[in-house]
Amino acid sequence: VTTVKLAVIPGDGIGPEVVAEALKALDAATVDSGIEFDRTEFQLGAARYLETGDVLTDDDLAAIKSHDAILLGAVGGVPGDPRLVGANIERGLLLKLRFDLDHYVNLRPSVLYEGVRSPLAEPGDVDFVVVREGTEGPYVGNGGAIRTGTPAEVANEVSVNTAYGVERVVRYAFALAASRPRQKLTLVHKTNVLVFAGSLWKRTVDRVAEEYPEVTVDYLHVDAATIFLVTDPGRFDVIVTDNLFGDILTDLAGAISGGIGLAASGNINPDGTFPSMFEPVHGSAPDIAGKGIADPTAAIGSVALLLRHLGEAEAAERVERAIAADVAERGDRPRSTSEIGDQIAARIQALQPAHS
Amino acid sequence: VTTVKLAVIPGDGIGPEVVAEALKALDAATVDSGIEFDRTEFQLGAARYLETGDVLTDDDLAAIKSHDAILLGAVGGVPGDPRLVGANIERGLLLKLRFDLDHYVNLRPSVLYEGVRSPLAEPGDVDFVVVREGTEGPYVGNGGAIRTGTPAEVANEVSVNTAYGVERVVRYAFALAASRPRQKLTLVHKTNVLVFAGSLWKRTVDRVAEEYPEVTVDYLHVDAATIFLVTDPGRFDVIVTDNLFGDILTDLAGAISGGIGLAASGNINPDGTFPSMFEPVHGSAPDIAGKGIADPTAAIGSVALLLRHLGEAEAAERVERAIAADVAERGDRPRSTSEIGDQIAARIQALQPAHS
Ligand SMILES: CC(C)[C@H](C(=O)O)[C@@H](O)C(=O)O
Ligand SMILES: CC(C)[C@H](C(=O)O)[C@@H](O)C(=O)O
Repeated sequence: VTTVKLAVIPGDGIGPEVVAEALKALDAATVDSGIEFDRTEFQLGAARYLETGDVLTDDDLAAIKSHDAILLGAVGGVPGDPRLVGANIERGLLLKLRFDLDHYVNLRPSVLYEGVRSPLAEPGDVDFVVVREGTEGPYVGNGGAIRTGTPAEVANEVSVNTAYGVERVVRYAFALAASRPRQKLTLVHKTNVLVFAGSLWKRTVDRVAEEYPEVTVDYLHVDAATIFLVTDPGRFDVIVTDNLFGDILTDLAGAISGGIGLAASGNINPDGTFPSMFEPVHGSAPDIAGKGIADPTAAIGSVALLLRHLGEAEAAERVERAIAADVAERGDRPRSTSEIGDQIAARIQALQPAHS
Repeated sequence: VTTVKLAVIPGDGIGPEVVAEALKALDAATVDSGIEFDRTEFQLGAARYLETGDVLTDDDLAAIKSHDAILLGAVGGVPGDPRLVGANIERGLLLKLRFDLDHYVNLRPSVLYEGVRSPLAEPGDVDFVVVREGTEGPYVGNGGAIRTGTPAEVANEVSVNTAYGVERVVRYAFALAASRPRQKLTLVHKTNVLVFAGSLWKRTVDRVAEEYPEVTVDYLHVDAATIFLVTDPGRFDVIVTDNLFGDILTDLAGAISGGIGLAASGNINPDGTFPSMFEPVHGSAPDIAGKGIADPTAAIGSVALLLRHLGEAEAAERVERAIAADVAERGDRPRSTSEIGDQIAARIQALQPAHS
């Protein structure tokens, strides 16, 4: 039996609620299997900050680094909470983890499940993955301001893009595209305006494409890509894009494929130097926290991505099939967070292969 | 009779086709009126570049500046045309005009007309205006690269934001919101990541808001804004946002409100120091150029914005009502570009006030 050291960061708002269900799914998928999880819970997020003044200490970071993988719920306090002004939990915690753990692939699949009513598309039409760069672009925190608060203020933000950083994520995206039935890759950027960054991305994709003659490659400006996500999502298979464009496109992708409550993600360090981190795309949703009404599906989907990352393809598939089956039979009766979690966990167990 | 010197830039692809119809609408709206147009046509765009090697000469620019307003079709050649590599018509022509003519307000209304089938919303639900900043942000062309083409390449893009530039567009947006029935303004940015630029935008909106107690103000991160545009477009009235976010949101807005073929825009210099420029949001669409099948509605809608900018509110309204009436009666029979243009022009004339 392999033991995986799993760092669990429930976080704020609905984070702990959806993580509890994700862990049920993880347990269900791995009973009697060759893998077991040794979990450590980390109290991080807005609540911890309000209590102790810490966002993420060096000790926290070192402890997290000693794990094999991370499951995160959601972090962030109530918007506008004056006690959080200046804290920036997102930058200090979420982005710090992505950067320090070199999560250069932010993997965000979009599937429209059978049974999901989307006004925009038919089930089967939507089945793409966004490979969002995770460690560069306008997210580097390389901004600054002068004369802050005066009429002469100038506030800059720098998007940093390197051949090193772009090539590794583009290679990952091509390998992924080559492994999928449709073998298509779309680069999304804004090369006509961001000419330097855009040129680097475009040249890199063109060069790596030569090694993947089986992959069809196309290019869209980010503005046009939002149109096609609405009018023709079926045209996408693998999208590779920069950190900020990926952020925007994946929320939109969630909206067109059954809602952000279903969108799972993995922040992946493919080299295995650091633990990868799995989290729902949604935030902490403080407005519905504590009511037991949050949809844990995105967190459970993130468990599937975690299992696949750990090489447990069969278990990952069971989790995904259980989600698909659950979603297909969702009626109009509202279920609680834990009802959904229990029912998906039960399905995962029922799908257990005969030999175990 | 006031004479308005109008610079007309038909441009490339479907640009000349839609501009021809827009001019019919302009004529129809101003027969027997107190305003007449003295037009000069400028041959600018990819075709001109391929012929002469010029994108926009100093003489062109000086000549355009001596006009009162500009009507532009669309510019840009066939994507991937090797003869255009390195030309960047978008930056050298379109963006140069917006920057040199200080078009700091890029005004992009979204209305879902009666009769337009949108899978997402009901007519009446969608009626908002994006006020996109036009002279700053990541569009300033302040990027650069080192070691280009080597594995050690670094390519940066700088987003420049100034108190001067943000305040003037925010003031415009508040004045606009105050003049609309719902009196609501939404700032869209990414303050949790782009902390310096985001803070400047947020502080500016908060400060100007004090002068407009009647305007309800809220804030959305750009990623969340894309979700709401799909799930609840009715929540928007006036959106104020940065140049890049505005680019992305307005294409998406087009997609959810009847297609980009209906989306009009104005690049406005509210001070009147330079001529403002009116253009459809869509591009030159070389794939359908020359077939007479382009939809001229967005270009005609841009004429309405032009007329309103010139103080011809009554004529502007007639153009808008004619468009709404035309759209409401669009059946499934395809019409040619000029048929649509003729029919809208006829409606504009029919709506002529009795006294003329
Ligand atoms: C919370 C925020 C910093 C984050 C991002 O912008 O990456 C979120 O929107 C996401 O997509 O995971
Ligand atoms: C052509 C391009 C430079 C332009 C932009 O990005 O502003 C276009 O997309 C638009 O929205 O008018």
